[in-house]
Amino acid sequence: MSMNSFGHLFRVTTWGESHGPALGATVDGCPPGVPIDEAMIQHWLDRRKPGQNKYTTQRREADEVKILSGVFEGQTTGTPVQLMIENTDQRSKDYGDIKDKFRPGHADITYFQKYGIRDYRGGGRSSARETAARVAAGGLAREAIRALAPNVQITGYMVQMGPNRIDRTRFDWSQIEQNPFWVPDAQAASDWADYLDGLRKSGNSVGAVIEVVARGVPAGLGAPVYGKLDTDLAAAMMSINAVKGVEIGEGMAAAELTGEANADEIFMGQNGPQYSSNHAGGILGGISTGQDIVVRFAVKPTSSILTTRKTITRTGEETEIITKGRHDPCVGIRAVPVGEAMMACVILDHLLLHRGQIGANRGHIG
Amino acid sequence: MSMNSFGHLFRVTTWGESHGPALGATVDGCPPGVPIDEAMIQHWLDRRKPGQNKYTTQRREADEVKILSGVFEGQTTGTPVQLMIENTDQRSKDYGDIKDKFRPGHADITYFQKYGIRDYRGGGRSSARETAARVAAGGLAREAIRALAPNVQITGYMVQMGPNRIDRTRFDWSQIEQNPFWVPDAQAASDWADYLDGLRKSGNSVGAVIEVVARGVPAGLGAPVYGKLDTDLAAAMMSINAVKGVEIGEGMAAAELTGEANADEIFMGQNGPQYSSNHAGGILGGISTGQDIVVRFAVKPTSSILTTRKTITRTGEETEIITKGRHDPCVGIRAVPVGEAMMACVILDHLLLHRGQIGANRGHIG
Amino acid sequence: MSMNSFGHLFRVTTWGESHGPALGATVDGCPPGVPIDEAMIQHWLDRRKPGQNKYTTQRREADEVKILSGVFEGQTTGTPVQLMIENTDQRSKDYGDIKDKFRPGHADITYFQKYGIRDYRGGGRSSARETAARVAAGGLAREAIRALAPNVQITGYMVQMGPNRIDRTRFDWSQIEQNPFWVPDAQAASDWADYLDGLRKSGNSVGAVIEVVARGVPAGLGAPVYGKLDTDLAAAMMSINAVKGVEIGEGMAAAELTGEANADEIFMGQNGPQYSSNHAGGILGGISTGQDIVVRFAVKPTSSILTTRKTITRTGEETEIITKGRHDPCVGIRAVPVGEAMMACVILDHLLLHRGQIGANRGHIG
Amino acid sequence: MSMNSFGHLFRVTTWGESHGPALGATVDGCPPGVPIDEAMIQHWLDRRKPGQNKYTTQRREADEVKILSGVFEGQTTGTPVQLMIENTDQRSKDYGDIKDKFRPGHADITYFQKYGIRDYRGGGRSSARETAARVAAGGLAREAIRALAPNVQITGYMVQMGPNRIDRTRFDWSQIEQNPFWVPDAQAASDWADYLDGLRKSGNSVGAVIEVVARGVPAGLGAPVYGKLDTDLAAAMMSINAVKGVEIGEGMAAAELTGEANADEIFMGQNGPQYSSNHAGGILGGISTGQDIVVRFAVKPTSSILTTRKTITRTGEETEIITKGRHDPCVGIRAVPVGEAMMACVILDHLLLHRGQIGANRGHIG
Repeated sequence: MSMNSFGHLFRVTTWGESHGPALGATVDGCPPGVPIDEAMIQHWLDRRKPGQNKYTTQRREADEVKILSGVFEGQTTGTPVQLMIENTDQRSKDYGDIKDKFRPGHADITYFQKYGIRDYRGGGRSSARETAARVAAGGLAREAIRALAPNVQITGYMVQMGPNRIDRTRFDWSQIEQNPFWVPDAQAASDWADYLDGLRKSGNSVGAVIEVVARGVPAGLGAPVYGKLDTDLAAAMMSINAVKGVEIGEGMAAAELTGEANADEIFMGQNGPQYSSNHAGGILGGISTGQDIVVRFAVKPTSSILTTRKTITRTGEETEIITKGRHDPCVGIRAVPVGEAMMACVILDHLLLHRGQIGANRGHIG
Repeated sequence: MSMNSFGHLFRVTTWGESHGPALGATVDGCPPGVPIDEAMIQHWLDRRKPGQNKYTTQRREADEVKILSGVFEGQTTGTPVQLMIENTDQRSKDYGDIKDKFRPGHADITYFQKYGIRDYRGGGRSSARETAARVAAGGLAREAIRALAPNVQITGYMVQMGPNRIDRTRFDWSQIEQNPFWVPDAQAASDWADYLDGLRKSGNSVGAVIEVVARGVPAGLGAPVYGKLDTDLAAAMMSINAVKGVEIGEGMAAAELTGEANADEIFMGQNGPQYSSNHAGGILGGISTGQDIVVRFAVKPTSSILTTRKTITRTGEETEIITKGRHDPCVGIRAVPVGEAMMACVILDHLLLHRGQIGANRGHIG
Repeated sequence: MSMNSFGHLFRVTTWGESHGPALGATVDGCPPGVPIDEAMIQHWLDRRKPGQNKYTTQRREADEVKILSGVFEGQTTGTPVQLMIENTDQRSKDYGDIKDKFRPGHADITYFQKYGIRDYRGGGRSSARETAARVAAGGLAREAIRALAPNVQITGYMVQMGPNRIDRTRFDWSQIEQNPFWVPDAQAASDWADYLDGLRKSGNSVGAVIEVVARGVPAGLGAPVYGKLDTDLAAAMMSINAVKGVEIGEGMAAAELTGEANADEIFMGQNGPQYSSNHAGGILGGISTGQDIVVRFAVKPTSSILTTRKTITRTGEETEIITKGRHDPCVGIRAVPVGEAMMACVILDHLLLHRGQIGANRGHIG
Repeated sequence: MSMNSFGHLFRVTTWGESHGPALGATVDGCPPGVPIDEAMIQHWLDRRKPGQNKYTTQRREADEVKILSGVFEGQTTGTPVQLMIENTDQRSKDYGDIKDKFRPGHADITYFQKYGIRDYRGGGRSSARETAARVAAGGLAREAIRALAPNVQITGYMVQMGPNRIDRTRFDWSQIEQNPFWVPDAQAASDWADYLDGLRKSGNSVGAVIEVVARGVPAGLGAPVYGKLDTDLAAAMMSINAVKGVEIGEGMAAAELTGEANADEIFMGQNGPQYSSNHAGGILGGISTGQDIVVRFAVKPTSSILTTRKTITRTGEETEIITKGRHDPCVGIRAVPVGEAMMACVILDHLLLHRGQIGANRGHIG
């Protein structure tokens, strides 16, 4: 029962602090024979890397991954894969101010209350830097999925920044890689740039909603009733720093629908069942239907801001704090590749579980 | 790795089908010395019991719990507690029609695709009847919490039914037990009664949002980064039948806030840190702050409705279906005690974990 | 992390006390589509049942198993299988004497020290009666194995009782079911009958060594380095009441061999690799070789005997004790079907894991 | 469910291959506030290090441990501790011969059969080099135990090498650190030196039995019925490379005892219960009694020897093999610190579990 691990058969344990010598992911349960090298994982890490544009933290980390184990002659061997990323640009002096004060809305105070000791440099273990390890593991998961279920495609994008939502009628997959916000709506990308620039200059921050879709996932994945595919996705997304809500398909809006409106009617297509709609987000009873798996999660605004906020010190004195470090005005941006990585890990895990549980004994329709 | 289990140290495995001889919960890891008897658990089960008013399914189950193990002379012994509920009012004939057809929006089709065999009677394992076992386990969890942390109070209530939301200015804890919807707003209770009656008569159904609050939870619970208190709560709630979204504190609305607005400022109270607000829902960095833990989840409308819907048969023919069984027009009502039970299990689990992890070594402020 | 569970994918949780209303096994992860009914499980339970001859406890339990869930129309459905055995012949008065005294060599004292409360009736949870639940789960595992790997055969037998060992030159599989000791040596069966009768009459007891062999297990099962097949077998056997040692292949005697003597040389047979000997007990590096899996375990003598022994009371007074209940002079006899059941559960678990881990990607030789 | 992990709350995942860039242990669940630095762990690693005398492999590894995470200002923080050891003296050319041939008695063939790919250099993941990571984790566990239960002392030693056993009447704790075999019997140390020298020169190898004792362990540790202290110890020891048998207390010899002889009678001492003997090895019903915990395990002889043995190639041709690499004539020697490390990890884990399970609610005697 490792509290820094997730997954059932594809089991990822992340380790490391923001300003320690290194961080990484110990990945156990990756199938053997998956072609992999450092460049393939680096590709995904580079998408999350800080300092790439003015909308993300100016900390400049190379985020270079090293594979220390589990790979031989370009293929996984079935033994644990150790993915290590060395920290290189820690400016610990920036954080001296928060050594004895707790930032409101940050894990500073609860880590102290729980453990009685905390690595305050850059937020230590509670830093969003931990998500680099997730993205590395997700890169490996993607390659393993490619080997097992080549039709699966996993894509994340932003659908809301602060009060601004995308216009779904303008949805365009090809736009996602064309703007710094991973937004599938060119107009929104343009509008949001101005909006976020204003917030950034005033030292403020804002929240966001990210949607991650997995297309091509076969029907039958998910292990009811407590290892449901949606249960595992909810846990995976909620475990990401700053996430406060998770939705599957209709999500919270499902509360407003009648049973008549919510029913995704079923037809018979050439390759099996087809649905008239996807209110369910591709999951019924915790098991995939073969439709797109649709997950959304809300990321709260960064708590490290330039506005003065009231707080207390470690010894209980009331005081004020301004956080001057290098931070993201909208952490939701860099949460996009993290959400994709979590989706990849969960899908791979359930592909493996599905084999382990029932082999070829699945129900065939038609 | 049991897929029908949840919890780390307080580990609950539910078993049983809607129309089998019995269902129940195997509870492992309950601390010894907790005073418990069948009546104490029955109290909680009775709140969830079907057939209590016209707004819930007319199936009449006594839902009588039997304690088969783990209790001696009125106290838990530290060994597994088996909680069994025998099924008594199965009218399997009602369900003959769904033997070969899949209900849209229901787990019928995915269970078949996954397992190749399904107990179609009353939805089998995917039936909401499984939640009776959760409520029984939650009743035990409540008593164990009472022994370990007597100030904890766990209360669930409905905050939205279909498009209708409560008016938070009328929030009244004492109203919750006064109406069939567990609504903390007398006016809403009255309005919703008419609304739901209309839906019920037309054979339709509607979704709902339930909020569960845990008051008096000590600071320091939660095990970052993948056993966070909010991660476990998200998984617990998403694992409940028909749930499509989970929120902590501000939830999805956190996306709309700025960092300035979202920061819960900290003051020094008589018994430790106090906060100016609770956007965080009582959890920072996955660890409890000592504030109220606030969780919401959305329940979709029942998919078993009297409206004709298009579907297919097991052999792939297109057809139509009407579901005539005894169903809830708003399953969200009975989800209230289920949400409370899940909250109780998660809180107890983390109380135990917290001891196991660090004993008395917590940080003291002030 | 259930402490009353074992197995990875085929996960068995036993529950119940010696003198409670019932005991049983909650089995999660059984593949769907396995033909099963109560009679098939009863067959295995009957082999372990007490009171069958003068060498086992005279307690007369019907040990009738009921399947409460997870089976539909004669097949498993992939949901949890609840196997319940009601207790019928509890003579709790027999045990009044041990309420306040601790039996030397028994779990009485440690359960009290750990939990502060214990169900002393018949040893409560620490009673060998718990193994009935294991045998029931093992019966289910055997049927699932039959469906997945029909060549596997699991057989246990006694190879030593007290100082008496079987003569391996007289080893005869067909004798095992012909005598009350499950001994594959007719001469030993006859000799041991007299020996044990003497012990029984004097109210004494004696230990035993049981060997369990699994034939026909495919190569490749086992998950190094901490889920090795031998690691899981060692844990499974050591978890049985009264077991003090576990051996694989040569076992403790491997210490006496040279590398030259211990090497099982490899040849090429018609269906793959063949070995000149089986010092390894069918496992190399934690993974099955395709040879017979050979496990032995030692069972200590029952601590409940008619000889007066010195002990203390719950309040710390020194005293003496004689245990008058109905006990087995050699619990090793009834441990034979229990060892078989544990072997079946471990083999099935690793058959499922093997699929989940690597699918068809195994190395082929020749 | 990580197959390369062990422990419940103190959870150790080892990773790395014999000839990869590095290996290590990801340790999750270490309590916060434990004083630790690299030198404290290095102390234990140095005892296991190869190349220290003529009786161990001549591979010269510095085995220098680096702490990459989880420690801040000389104390653990409660977050994962990454312990990395870089490989420096890999002479991969030595192993070219075994690329296509399987060594009898070695994991070569089963890894290939399971995974279809194996890192043959130095045995890859199946190499005894993996145990360096265990010893590093054990060093950390020892320091955590020192903080939680300062009276605990864990000591391993060899009691048998090939057919030669120690004379228990000459048992002397102070001798253990005085000879290259960790033998508590000066005469045996001298005799065995000659014996092993002969074997070494002939290119042969031999097995051994190691005993590990934990003194000062409080009563009450162990979680029946499948997380028993002895169950976890059996699994821990059996998971060590080349181990074929595990014994607790009397071990296999318990089979020869009568109940009368085996009963450890109980008296009342100044600090609680005392026992007349320790046949039980300090564990009753899976729970510690407060006596010495006594575990023994047998290590088979190294399978890499200079004698020609018959085997097959990867493509199924029959052939012969001599293994010329640098190997230990008696791997049992270096298994002593490994056995100690496993004991330390298990004891710490159960100290933590015990708190998590029941807090202060233990039964007091007297």
